[in-house]
Amino acid sequence: MSGVVYLVGAGPGDPKLITVRGAEVLGLADVVVYDRLASPALLDLAPGAERIYAGKEPGRAAMRQEQIDALLVERGLAGDLVVRLKGGDPFVFGRGGEEALACARAGVPFEVVSGVSSAIAAPAAAGIPVTHRGVAQSFAVVTASTAHGDGVDLASVARSADTLVLLMAAGRLEGTCRSLIDAGRPEDEPAAIVQWATTPDQRHVVGTLADLPALALAASIGPPATLVVGNVVALAGELVQPDPATTSAVR
Amino acid sequence: MSGVVYLVGAGPGDPKLITVRGAEVLGLADVVVYDRLASPALLDLAPGAERIYAGKEPGRAAMRQEQIDALLVERGLAGDLVVRLKGGDPFVFGRGGEEALACARAGVPFEVVSGVSSAIAAPAAAGIPVTHRGVAQSFAVVTASTAHGDGVDLASVARSADTLVLLMAAGRLEGTCRSLIDAGRPEDEPAAIVQWATTPDQRHVVGTLADLPALALAASIGPPATLVVGNVVALAGELVQPDPATTSAVR
Repeated sequence: MSGVVYLVGAGPGDPKLITVRGAEVLGLADVVVYDRLASPALLDLAPGAERIYAGKEPGRAAMRQEQIDALLVERGLAGDLVVRLKGGDPFVFGRGGEEALACARAGVPFEVVSGVSSAIAAPAAAGIPVTHRGVAQSFAVVTASTAHGDGVDLASVARSADTLVLLMAAGRLEGTCRSLIDAGRPEDEPAAIVQWATTPDQRHVVGTLADLPALALAASIGPPATLVVGNVVALAGELVQPDPATTSAVR
Repeated sequence: MSGVVYLVGAGPGDPKLITVRGAEVLGLADVVVYDRLASPALLDLAPGAERIYAGKEPGRAAMRQEQIDALLVERGLAGDLVVRLKGGDPFVFGRGGEEALACARAGVPFEVVSGVSSAIAAPAAAGIPVTHRGVAQSFAVVTASTAHGDGVDLASVARSADTLVLLMAAGRLEGTCRSLIDAGRPEDEPAAIVQWATTPDQRHVVGTLADLPALALAASIGPPATLVVGNVVALAGELVQPDPATTSAVR
């Protein structure tokens, strides 16, 4: 009897931003295969499950992707209810498609449980809507790290959409901003970088494409961080949210 | 004493794809202001709350946006815990930015509870990852309806990213596909349209930019629907998910 593999989006950081469905299958898991960014509070939703750390730090991984794929298939075929817990959404730069393909090709039933992507939630956490009537009618998402490595045409993406979101942006921020300017985005276009979005450690810096790298360096912004570029960034000043803890007893 | 307004993403359709945080604040709500696409199961999470229908059907609305903004402010100032329940994510083509600004300018505390966007989850529900290693390293999101109305430069967006996602795509599918071809996307590029994604009524059709409009017409695909264009669509055949109900007792 075959098990099942759930590819679950953990959301952007705050453990309460996992979906109800994701929390539900975590509670039923025999084994949870998780990444570095998964919140310990989410693992606590699966108290009886075996926990396997799969790594996924920038530049290195505790397990190679092929090993992760093979593990999911092996445990699924063994009859386990497997949760593959992935930061953000499984199908947004998470290699979830490869994991799903491995399951499909091995005949292991799987379900993708979509999650809240940092591409949208990290800007939101800094008061920046990726779209806004009269300001931005489109947004494009790319990773800053592959942008300089895997042959992504950042220049093409740069000109495309009103709002640009670049994930994994902390490591090469100056080069990324320079590439965007070279591709035709204005030097004085508003830009922000958000680190540890939706967690207690969240910090963000707002500037322009020209000055953001220096501002981020001065503020010691490091990974994990999301870069957002576009006129919507100008809303951040007005939409920085009061801490609800000070105004209600909800959280 | 001021209340608080929660702008909550309801997710793409399946009520279990709301976040844990979203479900939590629904359970505490004095009043829920909801759209047409909100699942009745989500309203049931707020059994004691007043329910106000705000409409948001394509082309018409039960309430004008300004009325919705004013309502949120009024009830927030009156001390209520207000949940503004919006399909998908509040900051992705949901005019949530305007609602947040109205609160901010009126001094009403607010919190954005990000949600799972149909832009990512609707393709996923049809077995299509918006990014996939070696296939798509970027994606762009736009609405098909504003694309022909509010001055969006669809031609510019069309050339931008490996994967294109167009929300609210059912109404003008033929014109949208033609615009994308005219802007340089190949006629034979894979394309799919997904209706009622993640609900029991979900249906999708896969084709190419050239033949999808006729296929969708033959299949009577209507709103709400998401169009996805790019080579990732070719994965849909392999990644269509077995119904977990047949392989486990989880759902």
